Amino acid sequence: MSNVTLEDARRVIAAAEKKADEIGQPMNIAVVDSGGNLVAHVRQDGAWIGSVNISISKAWTSKAFDISTKDLGDNSQPTQQFFGIHTTNGGKVAIFAGGIPLVRDGVVVGAVGVSGGSGEQDHSVAEAGLTAF
Amino acid sequence: MSNVTLEDARRVIAAAEKKADEIGQPMNIAVVDSGGNLVAHVRQDGAWIGSVNISISKAWTSKAFDISTKDLGDNSQPTQQFFGIHTTNGGKVAIFAGGIPLVRDGVVVGAVGVSGGSGEQDHSVAEAGLTAF
Amino acid sequence: MSNVTLEDARRVIAAAEKKADEIGQPMNIAVVDSGGNLVAHVRQDGAWIGSVNISISKAWTSKAFDISTKDLGDNSQPTQQFFGIHTTNGGKVAIFAGGIPLVRDGVVVGAVGVSGGSGEQDHSVAEAGLTAF
Amino acid sequence: MSNVTLEDARRVIAAAEKKADEIGQPMNIAVVDSGGNLVAHVRQDGAWIGSVNISISKAWTSKAFDISTKDLGDNSQPTQQFFGIHTTNGGKVAIFAGGIPLVRDGVVVGAVGVSGGSGEQDHSVAEAGLTAF
Repeated sequence: MSNVTLEDARRVIAAAEKKADEIGQPMNIAVVDSGGNLVAHVRQDGAWIGSVNISISKAWTSKAFDISTKDLGDNSQPTQQFFGIHTTNGGKVAIFAGGIPLVRDGVVVGAVGVSGGSGEQDHSVAEAGLTAF
Repeated sequence: MSNVTLEDARRVIAAAEKKADEIGQPMNIAVVDSGGNLVAHVRQDGAWIGSVNISISKAWTSKAFDISTKDLGDNSQPTQQFFGIHTTNGGKVAIFAGGIPLVRDGVVVGAVGVSGGSGEQDHSVAEAGLTAF
Repeated sequence: MSNVTLEDARRVIAAAEKKADEIGQPMNIAVVDSGGNLVAHVRQDGAWIGSVNISISKAWTSKAFDISTKDLGDNSQPTQQFFGIHTTNGGKVAIFAGGIPLVRDGVVVGAVGVSGGSGEQDHSVAEAGLTAF
Repeated sequence: MSNVTLEDARRVIAAAEKKADEIGQPMNIAVVDSGGNLVAHVRQDGAWIGSVNISISKAWTSKAFDISTKDLGDNSQPTQQFFGIHTTNGGKVAIFAGGIPLVRDGVVVGAVGVSGGSGEQDHSVAEAGLTAF
């Protein structure tokens, strides 16, 4: 199983940035590897500083549970099976849209996390990144 | 009162692993003693890395409050009596299914915590561990 | 590059436990994989509860910097080049003996961390674990 | 006062990477802006995962106190005027070489932080980054 390289991460980030530019919303974009460790991060000019941490948390979360943060979020609302998961792991678990696993040969080898706009925007920018992987 | 030994923990973990193998979902399994301190942990190959922390938190929580995390969760939803408990104790309180107290002679002497699947799966694997105690 | 499996971790822990028994000092023993994530942990009966965290931190540190915690510690004393590293990474960096990288085909693919006795004892128990890898 | 843009950060990181390649030591490189907030980070293939956090902390520290972490470290040894500063700010203060302020028109507008080798290597790679600013 090959891991996410810096070159991979840059390709993912470039595609995500292109999408963010298209929708006109500056974003934070982060990529982690199979161990959940950060490979690369960028904050586009004008993107929220509070989203630095969130983009990294979304990427980590998507790899840590092999799931998009959007789907995890659906299961983490009050009365749902994972409600409360957002305060585990030292508060590093993000349960709103923007994190998507990076899959190679059927195995999750990393993830991309995006934060800076609406949940829908973040998710679509992450998807654009995934397409380039 | 006898405490949970490493041998006890291994017996519990082995039974839990067997159940996890049967349902085909790799799990993190943790056992704590009467002080809430970790005795043993295993992450089965392929189990979520985000569940290392959660399995330990579930075990700790079950001993800390002498209750299953499933039952605690029912009392910790918005508007319920313990809502907010998940952010106490430095965020170590897990309020979703998978943690079960280990009882000997009517006394809670430890707990097992399982994380890696759905809430139902986690709880059933923890129950399998309990049976072996 | 193959990662550390649970079977690998158990073999390492078994060898470390044997050594701990020989020297008569109960130990906490932890094994992490290439991403620094915990694969397995055991606390032998009677071992210090304060060493649960330390054994895991030593294993994480050895993988995180591809070095034994003993050698890292030599470089992290006051006036040395890495003094202050122990408070980085959320305080997860251990700078005293007991953590050793696990190497396969020349690559660090994980690490073992031991805590429960003197620095010399911890290091020798970790070395016994390494031998079984 | 103009702030550090993503384009600035990329130019600094590219120069730092070039230097890291020359000395043959893979590095983590981070750039922060005038608010101490991360603009961009890269982990070169093979660089220590424990240095992700440290590179960011070094960059933050250099901007936070408008000083290189090497110079701050000299003042933060036991008996020196700032000893203990490394545990302030939630442990985010790095007191060993590798962080250097980015100056424009005599004003510190950001910083670069490098981690992945010896203190001397980290500092020289950060200096290479500074040159490109």
